[in-house]
Amino acid sequence: MRDIAVFTGSAHPELAAEICEQLDVPLLPTRISRFANDCIEVQLQGNCREKDVFLIQPLSPPTQEHLAELLFMLNAARGASAGRITVVLPHYAYARSDKKDAPRISIGGRLVADLLTTAGADRVLAMTLHSPQVHGFFNIPVDHLHALRELADHFRRYNLDNAVVVSPDLGNAKEAAAFARMLGIEVAAGAKQRYADDKVVISSVIGEVADRDVIVLDDEIAKGSTVFELLARLRERNVRSVRVACTHGLFAADAVQRLSAEKEIEEIVCTNTVPIPMHNRTDKLTILSVAPALAEAMRRIHNGESVSALFG
Amino acid sequence: MRDIAVFTGSAHPELAAEICEQLDVPLLPTRISRFANDCIEVQLQGNCREKDVFLIQPLSPPTQEHLAELLFMLNAARGASAGRITVVLPHYAYARSDKKDAPRISIGGRLVADLLTTAGADRVLAMTLHSPQVHGFFNIPVDHLHALRELADHFRRYNLDNAVVVSPDLGNAKEAAAFARMLGIEVAAGAKQRYADDKVVISSVIGEVADRDVIVLDDEIAKGSTVFELLARLRERNVRSVRVACTHGLFAADAVQRLSAEKEIEEIVCTNTVPIPMHNRTDKLTILSVAPALAEAMRRIHNGESVSALFG
Amino acid sequence: MRDIAVFTGSAHPELAAEICEQLDVPLLPTRISRFANDCIEVQLQGNCREKDVFLIQPLSPPTQEHLAELLFMLNAARGASAGRITVVLPHYAYARSDKKDAPRISIGGRLVADLLTTAGADRVLAMTLHSPQVHGFFNIPVDHLHALRELADHFRRYNLDNAVVVSPDLGNAKEAAAFARMLGIEVAAGAKQRYADDKVVISSVIGEVADRDVIVLDDEIAKGSTVFELLARLRERNVRSVRVACTHGLFAADAVQRLSAEKEIEEIVCTNTVPIPMHNRTDKLTILSVAPALAEAMRRIHNGESVSALFG
Amino acid sequence: MRDIAVFTGSAHPELAAEICEQLDVPLLPTRISRFANDCIEVQLQGNCREKDVFLIQPLSPPTQEHLAELLFMLNAARGASAGRITVVLPHYAYARSDKKDAPRISIGGRLVADLLTTAGADRVLAMTLHSPQVHGFFNIPVDHLHALRELADHFRRYNLDNAVVVSPDLGNAKEAAAFARMLGIEVAAGAKQRYADDKVVISSVIGEVADRDVIVLDDEIAKGSTVFELLARLRERNVRSVRVACTHGLFAADAVQRLSAEKEIEEIVCTNTVPIPMHNRTDKLTILSVAPALAEAMRRIHNGESVSALFG
Amino acid sequence: MRDIAVFTGSAHPELAAEICEQLDVPLLPTRISRFANDCIEVQLQGNCREKDVFLIQPLSPPTQEHLAELLFMLNAARGASAGRITVVLPHYAYARSDKKDAPRISIGGRLVADLLTTAGADRVLAMTLHSPQVHGFFNIPVDHLHALRELADHFRRYNLDNAVVVSPDLGNAKEAAAFARMLGIEVAAGAKQRYADDKVVISSVIGEVADRDVIVLDDEIAKGSTVFELLARLRERNVRSVRVACTHGLFAADAVQRLSAEKEIEEIVCTNTVPIPMHNRTDKLTILSVAPALAEAMRRIHNGESVSALFG
Amino acid sequence: MRDIAVFTGSAHPELAAEICEQLDVPLLPTRISRFANDCIEVQLQGNCREKDVFLIQPLSPPTQEHLAELLFMLNAARGASAGRITVVLPHYAYARSDKKDAPRISIGGRLVADLLTTAGADRVLAMTLHSPQVHGFFNIPVDHLHALRELADHFRRYNLDNAVVVSPDLGNAKEAAAFARMLGIEVAAGAKQRYADDKVVISSVIGEVADRDVIVLDDEIAKGSTVFELLARLRERNVRSVRVACTHGLFAADAVQRLSAEKEIEEIVCTNTVPIPMHNRTDKLTILSVAPALAEAMRRIHNGESVSALFG
Repeated sequence: MRDIAVFTGSAHPELAAEICEQLDVPLLPTRISRFANDCIEVQLQGNCREKDVFLIQPLSPPTQEHLAELLFMLNAARGASAGRITVVLPHYAYARSDKKDAPRISIGGRLVADLLTTAGADRVLAMTLHSPQVHGFFNIPVDHLHALRELADHFRRYNLDNAVVVSPDLGNAKEAAAFARMLGIEVAAGAKQRYADDKVVISSVIGEVADRDVIVLDDEIAKGSTVFELLARLRERNVRSVRVACTHGLFAADAVQRLSAEKEIEEIVCTNTVPIPMHNRTDKLTILSVAPALAEAMRRIHNGESVSALFG
Repeated sequence: MRDIAVFTGSAHPELAAEICEQLDVPLLPTRISRFANDCIEVQLQGNCREKDVFLIQPLSPPTQEHLAELLFMLNAARGASAGRITVVLPHYAYARSDKKDAPRISIGGRLVADLLTTAGADRVLAMTLHSPQVHGFFNIPVDHLHALRELADHFRRYNLDNAVVVSPDLGNAKEAAAFARMLGIEVAAGAKQRYADDKVVISSVIGEVADRDVIVLDDEIAKGSTVFELLARLRERNVRSVRVACTHGLFAADAVQRLSAEKEIEEIVCTNTVPIPMHNRTDKLTILSVAPALAEAMRRIHNGESVSALFG
Repeated sequence: MRDIAVFTGSAHPELAAEICEQLDVPLLPTRISRFANDCIEVQLQGNCREKDVFLIQPLSPPTQEHLAELLFMLNAARGASAGRITVVLPHYAYARSDKKDAPRISIGGRLVADLLTTAGADRVLAMTLHSPQVHGFFNIPVDHLHALRELADHFRRYNLDNAVVVSPDLGNAKEAAAFARMLGIEVAAGAKQRYADDKVVISSVIGEVADRDVIVLDDEIAKGSTVFELLARLRERNVRSVRVACTHGLFAADAVQRLSAEKEIEEIVCTNTVPIPMHNRTDKLTILSVAPALAEAMRRIHNGESVSALFG
Repeated sequence: MRDIAVFTGSAHPELAAEICEQLDVPLLPTRISRFANDCIEVQLQGNCREKDVFLIQPLSPPTQEHLAELLFMLNAARGASAGRITVVLPHYAYARSDKKDAPRISIGGRLVADLLTTAGADRVLAMTLHSPQVHGFFNIPVDHLHALRELADHFRRYNLDNAVVVSPDLGNAKEAAAFARMLGIEVAAGAKQRYADDKVVISSVIGEVADRDVIVLDDEIAKGSTVFELLARLRERNVRSVRVACTHGLFAADAVQRLSAEKEIEEIVCTNTVPIPMHNRTDKLTILSVAPALAEAMRRIHNGESVSALFG
Repeated sequence: MRDIAVFTGSAHPELAAEICEQLDVPLLPTRISRFANDCIEVQLQGNCREKDVFLIQPLSPPTQEHLAELLFMLNAARGASAGRITVVLPHYAYARSDKKDAPRISIGGRLVADLLTTAGADRVLAMTLHSPQVHGFFNIPVDHLHALRELADHFRRYNLDNAVVVSPDLGNAKEAAAFARMLGIEVAAGAKQRYADDKVVISSVIGEVADRDVIVLDDEIAKGSTVFELLARLRERNVRSVRVACTHGLFAADAVQRLSAEKEIEEIVCTNTVPIPMHNRTDKLTILSVAPALAEAMRRIHNGESVSALFG
Repeated sequence: MRDIAVFTGSAHPELAAEICEQLDVPLLPTRISRFANDCIEVQLQGNCREKDVFLIQPLSPPTQEHLAELLFMLNAARGASAGRITVVLPHYAYARSDKKDAPRISIGGRLVADLLTTAGADRVLAMTLHSPQVHGFFNIPVDHLHALRELADHFRRYNLDNAVVVSPDLGNAKEAAAFARMLGIEVAAGAKQRYADDKVVISSVIGEVADRDVIVLDDEIAKGSTVFELLARLRERNVRSVRVACTHGLFAADAVQRLSAEKEIEEIVCTNTVPIPMHNRTDKLTILSVAPALAEAMRRIHNGESVSALFG
């Protein structure tokens, strides 16, 4: 069996280190330098030849920089005769751009899938893609994990007798429904319309929420506009309490602080698919680690064992 | 400008003829023969050389036969030096297979997109794809029309004061919401779970439907299981009346007859993206034609005019 | 060495089972289901990850259905991270469509070769392709077996002192000549012209056949039109007896029955590259098994041993 | 309509000039130079930008040099922004290598088809390919002409009452049969076996030839081994006279001289698809020009008119 | 002829505007927005269908952002059915990364060429690539302009009797030699070794520079380390005066200010291939416009006229 | 680990044999035959299935023949199911054609890189490419060795106190500078202009050469025009002695004899990357073997060990 060789870009070295610790393999160093004209150059500082190479890089902000780093790492790994290259994408920001809802716009989710293949990716390990169809944007094998297990383990510690999962959006209420089933509780959903990326209106909440302990579930929270809008509707319906859960805690600007300041919100739960800077770590914020799940998937990919058997 | 040349397979020659009439161009003959071993052979019986070729073929049942026909027509057109080949897909059955919700399954929506490209397609004109992300499965330009305009024109003839659009599924409630906005009415949705392709359970309907005139909107109706399941929930909520609308009226087995037999159902409205055999044409069935819309899109594609400007 | 994993579609499960028995490996289950709109979905029900996957599927009637199944199986296997995928094609119907003898026709033999590659095939194991050039239609490695050895073993049991091999067609008389050399006898051939797939005229038989025991050899027999036409010519030349041999016994309609009814025809010999339904198994029909040959080739492919050394 | 731009390599400038004369367009100069290390460099000395470029080059001996020239011309034309590039291949030597009749051999006919595409060919105009299946080796449109019309026009000037067309090989007797039908006469064929490229044995001639005026038809004659072997068999059968016809008169070594020295051979007819050096032009040799046919096909390709209509 | 449609990203809208003014065509608006997770989305706000689209974007700092913008613009243009897409790259930063001078490093110049093709580029118009071989990294047609003509026109206004062109680096002294020939003067060169991207040592200057008016020529100046190092060597050799010329004036940090502060340096000349912010525009800085040259090349590309004829 | 299988074409069997001796593996036979029409056919006469195949072939004169052989060998190896195919290119003549310095010319270095990939190459082992950028022409991994180590070992036996390395050309003076550093001596360079492939003018030598022992270093010497031109300049500067060193000793015509006849030239040193015929082996010629270096690189490639670690 070919040896494993794990590298990371600059997007989230902490997560990469935690994964490597789980796998008990070294995180090999990557040098990312810049020419004076700002063009980057990557050197993988560990032998790749015929190795089973894993490149860990969430495409989190600054997203375009991290994408370029990843593409250059792929180019370097392929040129260095890697045996197989798996891109580990704990967060794939471009999945948000998955359809053509206006004329002459880019479909970033598909474009970037193609760019990764061009640069040399042989396979992808992703987590909680914005929509399940994004899987089909790749023409290389994708193992697609979800953090629902981690989130459910966390919420099971609470009394859920009066709880309900609320999806802010009808569009991905299926994920919320699956989560609700894991917790054995009901689901409701907001009827969301997006006027711009940060301008949403939730006209109504369909389903029973009055006097309930609400668990809001979304795949990612960035500016939090959707959650604030949903919160307004939930307040009107006199919910008892609110906990907010998501996989990707991007928390643009002061989103955590502003969410934490809302008295109905008792807790904000996310995972470490993207780095959470210290200044965002308020008392109400709980961060769950996906490193064990990613490490186990990588171990199984390396050994040729079933990934679906584990996370199915 | 290169001349236009339109061909059709055996899936829906009536629609192709209607489109050609709209465009005032001849529908050129296609010979589809079989070797004694059942392998098909296609001959396009009209000059294709440097022409702007359109191949009209909904991928309706028998779906795999129609897919093979289309692939062979593409091969023949490319080999015959077509200038550009546009596949007109009034119905793309494989869009239903757009995600990997079980291990080791095919993603037909992506696979067939790639097969069409391999066989020679330069671009696609599609209608009401099962999910908007399927657009991104193609790496060639896609013009994606919706039949909402035709459906809305039809329903505007009724008194809609008490009406509500109901999506059977949270998963594509966005389409229903858009349709409701076109009609100036509200939207509701069923919380559907699919246990098998023809076994669905709708646990609840979220939104206000009691004592309302319901317009059920779905993208396609085949066996009708979903509609029957929704109807049971609607009955429990004492809706006043039900009209069922969809783009793709596949109506497997005796679905139309069984729907028509339900007394709450006043009308079933579909379009002619797939052929509706005479024995399915009950009194309650209304068939709207998408030929004018497809013809106008083809005219604009041929002339290099904006398609989005028309159908945006 | 990666483990072997063998799957079959619905074209010929008996042959697949016989091959697996020879190889002493399990035939893993494949689920082929259909959405209500007739679009198929394949699930390979056995771990493929890093496995040496073999997909057995003759492209026999209904040919287009079986082709689609195979393409979807390939898509599923690739998406499931198969280590290598070999398509086992005991019969490749599309090889009949190998040239462009009319304007604007498809060349199915090349098109399907490309589709198989697009869907994920890494290599092909084929048997008795209609013409040897079809090998070159694939841009992936092809191992091409012939059933001449099996057929020759069968005919050697007879007294061949007075025998002659007759090819119905000058076009593939080379195969017949090779077969005749294996049996140590002479060869003759019909001068065939094809007016349509099932309309052939044999104007003359060139070579000595009068008062001889004739072995007619063809690659496939479907409707049998060619054999009947040849038989008329042979009768005119007062042949003593006729045995008919082919690799692919497709036997469309009641071809076996009609051939069996001819008194000059003493035996019809074919192999099991395609399934022979019970109602076709007349007293005059002999079916030879190619399972041992295919199994041995698969074993050698799996182990990296020479295939040509065995079957050369 | 884009302008036409015609270039030729060094294989057969006379034919290119004759074609250009027919088309009334200039033959633009090509500079083919060599670095001191023998690596060639091509410069097309006429503007190609957005032009409809035709590169005329039979792949005749020295075949590999002419192939390299053509590939470099394609590279130069594509880099120079040609609008479309048609390769005109009056002779495609590699078509001889169209099957895998021994283990681990190259299939040159397919390989070179792929190389031409890689280098930039958009389409091919070929003449009398060794086997019709070679058409399918290309994944770009091929217009495939035959010189049978030119040859038939020539032979119609003779009294054909007693004539018969003889194919030296059962393998391509179909071509001979088609030619015989054009002339309204019968066909016969040799049963040829090839032991090496220049070592063939014809064991018998099947069909009636005694006391007849024989027209031997082959696609190409190089060393002439096959014709000499056939001649021996024909002599044994007391044919009255022999004329030899082929499309590609390669005439390796002193083949023309040796054929001309045979007293039974009254005439050797070929076309100018490859250059015929002066020392090969014996009294018995007749050379027909394919320039008018190729020029007319190019004119139709350029104008987007049907080629099959003309030569079908 | 298809209409022209010109768009620009955010890298250098002033240059794009100046080019469009030269061409007398509108610069169509591009909307580049960001999802809350920082992933960009591009909308081309002008009809592209069948148009001759030009996307102007120097890959200048922030280089990776500008690259991503360009890739997304290409994706949008292709999806919007552009007839042909030409990428106009006044500066291609990644050309600096054109070789593998350390193990396991990326070759950005080749990688980005492939990414542009994947995203949809049909052709490239570039200016003063770092090395001429970078042309060969693209597998699409490249028109490669140089700004030597603009620079030479500028310097011809001075008395050049005592002048000499000095290349800081032997590695691209050929460009300097060509420039010197255009001015009719001599050339010299520094023997440069690069220890890191911003750490260079020039061990000697080979050629005659003492008491001369030196024109330093480089393709790009970013931090200016090379020029400062060269200046030290020139001072030791008592040059009379120094003028610094380059095509790409990237001027990282306070490079212009620091160069301007050197008393030997009388002038710094660059072009506007990349934007020069106001705070960099010192008295000693002269900026020449390449907009006329790029506009004329675009006009010729659009009209299918020779570009080499103009700039050869 | 897959077994190794080494083949060679006809370009340099002696080198291949020497490499195999170093590796202690057999050199497997290759049959290269020709059809009568001069089209070649290759048969690899040793099992390739799943083997780690190496094809050794310098692209030396007759270069186009050797290229074709190599492409056909690749086709045969891929068709024979080779596990991995490494092309060993001791000399890559086409690297000379690496830029577009005239309109409408071919860039052979890039074209041939693409042809090798199309034909089946998985990786390349090259030596002393004409320019380092040629590495980037390949989209498969390249291991690029230099013969500087071998050359330096040779020259270290001499007293180098008074020695200087002279590059005939500023354009690749970097290589000479690296060589000079290995020897601990200084570097100088000629200012060369090429008017044609065999017509160069060196206007000046920049750097100190008077009264020195000169080591001229070039990558390849063919006609020697450059060296003779440089020698004239060196003579004018009264150098003490001259030794000429290169990696690729192509020595067209009587170049060795003419160089050996120059009295200043004490020695001509080259390697055996290309065959040196006996009549070129003058007393002044020293040939160093690169077989040990190539063999060691092949061993490391086969074993998945670092190649850069050895030759870095």
